Amino acid sequence: MSLLLGEIVAALGGELLGDAAMVVERLASLVAAGPAAISFLSHPRYRKELLASRAGCVIVAPSMRDEAMARGACLVVDDPYLYFARLTQLWKARHAPAQPPGIHPSAVVDVGAHVDATAVIGPLCVVERGARIGAGTVLKSRVTVSEDCVIGDRCLLHPGVVVGADGFGLAPHEGAWVKIEQLGAVRIGNDVEIGANTCIDRGALEDTVLEDGVKLDNLIQIGHNVRVGRNTAMAGCVGVAGSADIGAQCTIGGGAVVLGHLKLADGVHVSAATVVTRSILKPGQYTGVFPIDDNAAWERNAATLRHLHQLRERLRALEKQAASGLTP
Amino acid sequence: MSLLLGEIVAALGGELLGDAAMVVERLASLVAAGPAAISFLSHPRYRKELLASRAGCVIVAPSMRDEAMARGACLVVDDPYLYFARLTQLWKARHAPAQPPGIHPSAVVDVGAHVDATAVIGPLCVVERGARIGAGTVLKSRVTVSEDCVIGDRCLLHPGVVVGADGFGLAPHEGAWVKIEQLGAVRIGNDVEIGANTCIDRGALEDTVLEDGVKLDNLIQIGHNVRVGRNTAMAGCVGVAGSADIGAQCTIGGGAVVLGHLKLADGVHVSAATVVTRSILKPGQYTGVFPIDDNAAWERNAATLRHLHQLRERLRALEKQAASGLTP
Amino acid sequence: MSLLLGEIVAALGGELLGDAAMVVERLASLVAAGPAAISFLSHPRYRKELLASRAGCVIVAPSMRDEAMARGACLVVDDPYLYFARLTQLWKARHAPAQPPGIHPSAVVDVGAHVDATAVIGPLCVVERGARIGAGTVLKSRVTVSEDCVIGDRCLLHPGVVVGADGFGLAPHEGAWVKIEQLGAVRIGNDVEIGANTCIDRGALEDTVLEDGVKLDNLIQIGHNVRVGRNTAMAGCVGVAGSADIGAQCTIGGGAVVLGHLKLADGVHVSAATVVTRSILKPGQYTGVFPIDDNAAWERNAATLRHLHQLRERLRALEKQAASGLTP
Repeated sequence: MSLLLGEIVAALGGELLGDAAMVVERLASLVAAGPAAISFLSHPRYRKELLASRAGCVIVAPSMRDEAMARGACLVVDDPYLYFARLTQLWKARHAPAQPPGIHPSAVVDVGAHVDATAVIGPLCVVERGARIGAGTVLKSRVTVSEDCVIGDRCLLHPGVVVGADGFGLAPHEGAWVKIEQLGAVRIGNDVEIGANTCIDRGALEDTVLEDGVKLDNLIQIGHNVRVGRNTAMAGCVGVAGSADIGAQCTIGGGAVVLGHLKLADGVHVSAATVVTRSILKPGQYTGVFPIDDNAAWERNAATLRHLHQLRERLRALEKQAASGLTP
Repeated sequence: MSLLLGEIVAALGGELLGDAAMVVERLASLVAAGPAAISFLSHPRYRKELLASRAGCVIVAPSMRDEAMARGACLVVDDPYLYFARLTQLWKARHAPAQPPGIHPSAVVDVGAHVDATAVIGPLCVVERGARIGAGTVLKSRVTVSEDCVIGDRCLLHPGVVVGADGFGLAPHEGAWVKIEQLGAVRIGNDVEIGANTCIDRGALEDTVLEDGVKLDNLIQIGHNVRVGRNTAMAGCVGVAGSADIGAQCTIGGGAVVLGHLKLADGVHVSAATVVTRSILKPGQYTGVFPIDDNAAWERNAATLRHLHQLRERLRALEKQAASGLTP
Repeated sequence: MSLLLGEIVAALGGELLGDAAMVVERLASLVAAGPAAISFLSHPRYRKELLASRAGCVIVAPSMRDEAMARGACLVVDDPYLYFARLTQLWKARHAPAQPPGIHPSAVVDVGAHVDATAVIGPLCVVERGARIGAGTVLKSRVTVSEDCVIGDRCLLHPGVVVGADGFGLAPHEGAWVKIEQLGAVRIGNDVEIGANTCIDRGALEDTVLEDGVKLDNLIQIGHNVRVGRNTAMAGCVGVAGSADIGAQCTIGGGAVVLGHLKLADGVHVSAATVVTRSILKPGQYTGVFPIDDNAAWERNAATLRHLHQLRERLRALEKQAASGLTP
């Protein structure tokens, strides 16, 4: 597995300061790279790693050209991280044979499902009646797409994904629960990636929707009737409750929870493990996490927290006293 | 896909104020409904949506009869939400052919498993030796029921569910872990629904138990030896640690965590993302969530929180000083 | 299913004070045990349960010998909990036939995968090209091991586990995301257990690594490039973000989240539902959880928490005033 530096530049562009005949045997981080590796500097704050790196060639921004040249071969590009992303794609395309289009014989695809001829349905997947799988979309293995759910083009669904299980709809009746059948489906746009064992529930009446370019990590739960806007990305273990309406270009950190029926504007960024309990209509970064501490300190502070409201009342009383000029 | 209003009333009851020959082509929310749709008003606070709705017919409570009549056809029933739930069931029964009973040829069912003749074992399920699947129960697809686990009647297990994996039992020994084999199984009652990719571990010695009518959403973890009482419902991403004993008619919000060996009384309601760190013996609503804020405000407050105990001490000192009448 | 007390002692050692011919029909907790059961006392704080127990024989530490003898047969051993763990293994080995080595006919194993002849590949598993499965390792059912991932010897992977799905790597570009292909794999050592529906992502450039003896419960997410050190154990629903470096002999409580690129030293213990937002270089127990309370009390305290920083400023002002001797 190798590429010449010249091949990389021919395919992806950039200004090469070094030997086009150099053989690149691997991609690596600055720290792990050896002389046969190409690496990249995504941010000037890693300058020290750059100078210490043994990488045969480094991808850098124009601002780092001089420092990079001083240490050896480099590739100068506008956005090194983006260039590196494209290089991983080039590398994979050259070295890892793609799964051929078609339906693996072990997959169970209903005759009433519509699978594009260029799609890949991997081993042990289930595609139910009325489901549609678009052009170039890949279901890796052990993916379920339930009836009438639609997946767009160029999507990638990792193992264990479940699209279109019933949303959690129940009406209380005499102490028990009566099921609300989920009559909607799931509609997923183009260029959507869904991580392993993530679940997207079907809608109760209308459809649950993931718009184009949405990226979901592993073990995420998307409840019924949710909308996730274009290019929004969520890290692992996020839970989005039913009927939440999440805008475009949002990022949701790992383990965050979005409660039901809330609206998040475009460009809202939720920190990891934060619980969104109200609609957020203004772009920005939002957080709500109890700070970690050694256990003894946490115990003291958590115990006090349970009396915080009282503390405020006591503070107020003191302030009043001070303001009145009376010391009893 | 359609039903006459008259057919709906014949099947489900209610007082129809409108034309029994009206053709209902879909069920929809008040906002999304058009003239061929039936909708419902679950709560008077949505009165405004009712008045603005284009729905051909609306299901309402007796208290809303006059307002609903003024705008067009309506169906007056005691509990509109419950009626709507039953209507979704009627709709599905009429329009979506149920999976026929029997074992899909791609499922792997041990000869020593007992599957009721009216049960549905969907594609790519695994049912191990000694497992029992009750009457009318449906395993949708890619469900595992491990050895000796018992599922009651009329249950619904969504794709990816794992019943009866080993509980997490380990004894420490010289810095490593010695496995405690899990000799119990899982016993699931009747009318239980389990969401996609949810896991119910087998017991260490006795069985893990889900009682009748329990409803679990997706991606939930139920540890070994847990008991979940009748009709308790849990939203997605809940984690229940080993040997927790959860009462009947509880609700556990999404992403909540219940620690091990705790007891929750009947009728305890835990808010989403709350961590239950102590037994709760009194019914009621319980919460513990760090409030979300813009990131800068959160940082300030979180930093202060790490000194909260000290703040209280300082407040006490001031109070003492004030009480003593001394201003130093 | 039964064992004689004498057989147990012959296999596992310990000092038997009682009849070696006693027939043990089950293992049980002190509370649930009847006369045909053997139980164990893991800690002197359960002395009361010991005295009330109807167990036919009890495994105890030397310090409890006299009290245990007074109530009936007992087995005196150095570490009763460890002994009990080994007894569960003996019990299972005698009574539950192990899955025979080999590849279940329903599994999909690539011809370019390497599966040791003593390994078990259960029903409906997927093992991709270049993957390696070590001696005595068991993939229960519906497990995916993706290409080039390596699993050591004597590992146990429960149903639904996904090893080697793509890490979540994306470069932003003009408002959309460009995929970073994940060119690393996953390397798992010996004696590792992985719970149901847990996901271990492949590395971006280097491998994601679980060292020997790691134990993971269900529904855990391990991001790309993570290292988990020897004998570290994690309870259910933990999320570990990319490039975290977790030491040996750590424990991570259920539902905890470890953010990316952090380092945890050996011997760090993270409490359940705690969010690790900074590296922890000193062994110890660390916690950060909002204390649960009844909902009304929580609301009051959470509202005040959003003004905590201001409260501190007000307290400072009062202190200054007091220190200056001025009461305005």
